[in-house]
Amino acid sequence: MSYLKMNAAELQNEYAVLRAQYESVCSEHLSLDMSRGKPCTEQLGLSDELLFALKSKDDCLTASGFDIRNYGLPGGVPELAALFAELLDVPAENIILGGNSSLNMMYDTVCRAILFGTYGNCLPWKDQGKIKFICPVPGYDRHFSICERCGIDLVPVSMTGEGPNMDEVEELIKDPSVKGMWCVPKYSNPTGETYSDATVKRIATMRPAAPDFRVFWDLAYIIHDLDETPDKLLNIFDLTRGTENENLVYAFFSTSKITYPGAGIAVMVSSDANIKQAKADIAFQTISPDKINQLRHMKYLKNADTVRDLMKKHAAILKPKFETCVRYFEENLGGLEFVHWTNPHGGYFISLDVMNGTAKRVTTLCKEAGVTLTPAGSTFPYKNDPEDKNIRIAPSYPTIEELEKALEIACLCVKLAAVEKLIQA
Amino acid sequence: MSYLKMNAAELQNEYAVLRAQYESVCSEHLSLDMSRGKPCTEQLGLSDELLFALKSKDDCLTASGFDIRNYGLPGGVPELAALFAELLDVPAENIILGGNSSLNMMYDTVCRAILFGTYGNCLPWKDQGKIKFICPVPGYDRHFSICERCGIDLVPVSMTGEGPNMDEVEELIKDPSVKGMWCVPKYSNPTGETYSDATVKRIATMRPAAPDFRVFWDLAYIIHDLDETPDKLLNIFDLTRGTENENLVYAFFSTSKITYPGAGIAVMVSSDANIKQAKADIAFQTISPDKINQLRHMKYLKNADTVRDLMKKHAAILKPKFETCVRYFEENLGGLEFVHWTNPHGGYFISLDVMNGTAKRVTTLCKEAGVTLTPAGSTFPYKNDPEDKNIRIAPSYPTIEELEKALEIACLCVKLAAVEKLIQA
Repeated sequence: MSYLKMNAAELQNEYAVLRAQYESVCSEHLSLDMSRGKPCTEQLGLSDELLFALKSKDDCLTASGFDIRNYGLPGGVPELAALFAELLDVPAENIILGGNSSLNMMYDTVCRAILFGTYGNCLPWKDQGKIKFICPVPGYDRHFSICERCGIDLVPVSMTGEGPNMDEVEELIKDPSVKGMWCVPKYSNPTGETYSDATVKRIATMRPAAPDFRVFWDLAYIIHDLDETPDKLLNIFDLTRGTENENLVYAFFSTSKITYPGAGIAVMVSSDANIKQAKADIAFQTISPDKINQLRHMKYLKNADTVRDLMKKHAAILKPKFETCVRYFEENLGGLEFVHWTNPHGGYFISLDVMNGTAKRVTTLCKEAGVTLTPAGSTFPYKNDPEDKNIRIAPSYPTIEELEKALEIACLCVKLAAVEKLIQA
Repeated sequence: MSYLKMNAAELQNEYAVLRAQYESVCSEHLSLDMSRGKPCTEQLGLSDELLFALKSKDDCLTASGFDIRNYGLPGGVPELAALFAELLDVPAENIILGGNSSLNMMYDTVCRAILFGTYGNCLPWKDQGKIKFICPVPGYDRHFSICERCGIDLVPVSMTGEGPNMDEVEELIKDPSVKGMWCVPKYSNPTGETYSDATVKRIATMRPAAPDFRVFWDLAYIIHDLDETPDKLLNIFDLTRGTENENLVYAFFSTSKITYPGAGIAVMVSSDANIKQAKADIAFQTISPDKINQLRHMKYLKNADTVRDLMKKHAAILKPKFETCVRYFEENLGGLEFVHWTNPHGGYFISLDVMNGTAKRVTTLCKEAGVTLTPAGSTFPYKNDPEDKNIRIAPSYPTIEELEKALEIACLCVKLAAVEKLIQA
């Protein structure tokens, strides 16, 4: 099947066939949602023991005897920090435990840099005129939104299959108004690609003109492998520690897709100096994070090995869903030379590129047929995909049966939108 | 007993007696802490059913069937908002539920005003040059600290026994750079006084020159009565609703001193417009607060009446501690014309004024004798009590036995510091 080689009559014929199929599915009045990377109910159920992990008030003490029901312990439950330190292969003292949202920790970190400046006697970003962040695209809309709300300009850099185009990045950071860069280095949202060793090394040794340049390293999917051949990500802190880039990286992590998205634990990791500065500022903000949920997580998660076992159970639920997506794309879109999709070894997303100039139309057609996809453009700053081609596919939440129905419709809409466009051209 | 009427020899004699007593207590090597308004272990135990309030995963649904384990529901658990709405006598739609720290909600509210401005097309505070907040003194150190960290100048206004001196406040707000005012209107920290109806009415009808002036109304102790003749506070929203001051007030509340300080629920209350703006901004910051802890609180707290019953149990534990303080002050400091203390009907603090110029010395003497008080000066901006006389007494955490020992020493140190000063004079 190649639409590009069809003549006008063949296109009209194809259009009539697809349109009839589309009208048929519309008449089913479906309601299917593939818009966000939400764990499904079965995944939530994996961690229901978390609800009962504290058996009595006597369980409300840390290993050192601190009563977590009361004020205090601003750094949170130390043994949970130690568990995450092991999982992330960083020193526990370089960890700050937060509430249930790593997005909140990222937002707060950006705001602190704007209001107070980064470590090292730099001016607050608010006093440095217009500043900019580099955002690899396609990327995560909520990262971009933080900058958009804070008046930080976003400069897109294309993803290459092994992370952002570092030639472009190295050129951009010559501008001292470029202060930061968003990264999801493992199973990047939405392409699912993992930054190669060469990419991580170039980031760790970058020479930004701005001394207060920071890399926001979102480890959202760091242990979220789907199969037995997971991607490997270099530990960037091993590369920056002791170098002049010691304070370059703020990393973030959470248990949102390990235990409960509605009540997880967020984590920030950075250098000694950055963590010391952040802790001092967080002390103005709050007396402590919710320590009951932290100790509950500690008792439930137990150790790094049991967490890794839990992630295998998540993978067992998620992998068939990813496979279903890829199978539908292959079977329905396989011959279309302008359609591309990723097939990641982990994470929560597949990135689907449709015919240029049709992504918005595809999502509209899907919506009208009862299938909600992430709005087209969401994976780009200002929700503006210049080629209008990228769609983020989030297969985790629906059941396989719902997913199959949604994919059937999505594939139909990809084809219908392409034919519509070719007819108009 | 009047030190002021003693001659030099009498003072020397009194000094020798007090000093000997002091050296005797120092030799006991005590370690007693009255520094913060921490609930005691017995109070924490009142709410241990909270730990088990969710009995199964089937309990993880809101009344409308939303699975709180997952992402979503950015406003939090609606039925908990309704419960707090009843307790605080405000519409549920004027409430935002947060995480476990109302301080964090206050900090975030200040930061949003700095970065983005308040409702009504005003410039962000960061773009308006030097700005100032009015702070009634003595007051709450953590309120002041937020402003200090954010570079907002603090202008002290004296407390009168029925709230801040409103003549001073009305004069200060003629300056358009004065943008805000901290208030703990019921059982104010540390004096324990409640703003009179006249004071609340003057605040509700104030005419600040700055259109983006905001009152930060911290209802930390709104239902924290100690006895059967509690203070009554007017509902300021009943006074501002529908007036040109509709958007004047941001109120805050939390369950830190109802359930657990280490894992409570914070609440913000404001006008329709302020809440709409805040919710829109919070959406950039986080996907939702921790909803498990919210639903747990809902199941445990049940309704406004059961919350009020719980507060009576807190009062039964706290009241004897407050009575002990007042008894010790009366018995040991009663004759000293320069010493004054408050005797509040609720809240967590007693405010003790010692001889001018001796508060720091009193806390140092106490510390050396093993009794930690809130550092002198903490109840003033920049930790600077111009008269060096105010000490915040926090009787909640120690046992009665520990409290008696600590008060014995504190009273001794108040007298010793006064005599030292009179001898030097």
